Amino acid sequence: MQAKEILKAHIAKTATLTADEFEYFFSCFKLQSYKKGQAVISEGDRVQHEYFVLDGILKTFYINDDMKMFILQFAMPTWWASDYNALYTGSKATVSVDCITKAEVLCLAGADREKLCSEIHQVEHFFRWRTNRGYVAAHKRLLSLMNSDAKHRYEELMAQYPELFSQVPKHLIAAYLGVSRETLSRLYNP
Amino acid sequence: MQAKEILKAHIAKTATLTADEFEYFFSCFKLQSYKKGQAVISEGDRVQHEYFVLDGILKTFYINDDMKMFILQFAMPTWWASDYNALYTGSKATVSVDCITKAEVLCLAGADREKLCSEIHQVEHFFRWRTNRGYVAAHKRLLSLMNSDAKHRYEELMAQYPELFSQVPKHLIAAYLGVSRETLSRLYNP
Repeated sequence: MQAKEILKAHIAKTATLTADEFEYFFSCFKLQSYKKGQAVISEGDRVQHEYFVLDGILKTFYINDDMKMFILQFAMPTWWASDYNALYTGSKATVSVDCITKAEVLCLAGADREKLCSEIHQVEHFFRWRTNRGYVAAHKRLLSLMNSDAKHRYEELMAQYPELFSQVPKHLIAAYLGVSRETLSRLYNP
Repeated sequence: MQAKEILKAHIAKTATLTADEFEYFFSCFKLQSYKKGQAVISEGDRVQHEYFVLDGILKTFYINDDMKMFILQFAMPTWWASDYNALYTGSKATVSVDCITKAEVLCLAGADREKLCSEIHQVEHFFRWRTNRGYVAAHKRLLSLMNSDAKHRYEELMAQYPELFSQVPKHLIAAYLGVSRETLSRLYNP
């Protein structure tokens, strides 16, 4: 499926745009390709875009004071990724985003998103629900981290992203779950 | 300040409503009073409302598999609280909300929020930005939990809510930070 069709199908689940409105909406996006391992956002960057994943897998991650990496989110096709704190507030990026596999994304500038939302009510509706879902996902992630049972966290992750295990290196799944590789091995091979 | 004036000032920071639009918007809210310690949402509930805090402090919390309580959020005046996962998806509440102090809130049904958003573009704009800010707060909370340095987490919390320490019992602040009461004592009295 082409970029335009993927975005159209994604929007249509939440909002109703006329053909002309969708053409205008799509014209604000820019197609970008990334190599495996390439950085999309690095900690400290000024962030002016958000990214809609067409193909490949991105990760949003954070390096803590002990230089330990935590993965906040994997972004699969039709997921959105950015440092939204930096994008919304104008502060510098506190998290990084890079590509676990080679990836194709559609890139939207924050200023264009605001313009589209103000001009087309249904676009604002779409972005409200996009963020509602992101908010719920962030809260689930919080609850998962607060739960002490690594096995439970592992099972939740596998239920949420069944395709993840074949596509993402094991040490990244361990970094998402906040466990060592040895603990992870015991979880998937008990 | 009266409930109506507090809500009006809160909305005006993000959206522009005519006097008639605001009257209609406000007419969808219901004023409710809670006693100290009273439950607003209990785990397992069907959730149909969200709550705008006028006075007092609410907490959103979660009891994990080891029966340990974690506090996801304190909701101070002009903050919103609910189990948004349950409210948006129709699933049962996985977190609980109760009142740390006696509290006054304005209560809005999810169905009324959707109706208002569809009828008034600026209301949809308001709720998009309300959730954008909530999303950013949830991500900050995630990063704070991933950071191993309890002193840093404590300082962040005090910078974010300077009034918290005088109004919230110490064991709840410890439950927010994910530390024991003894560790908390060392942090604020080093």
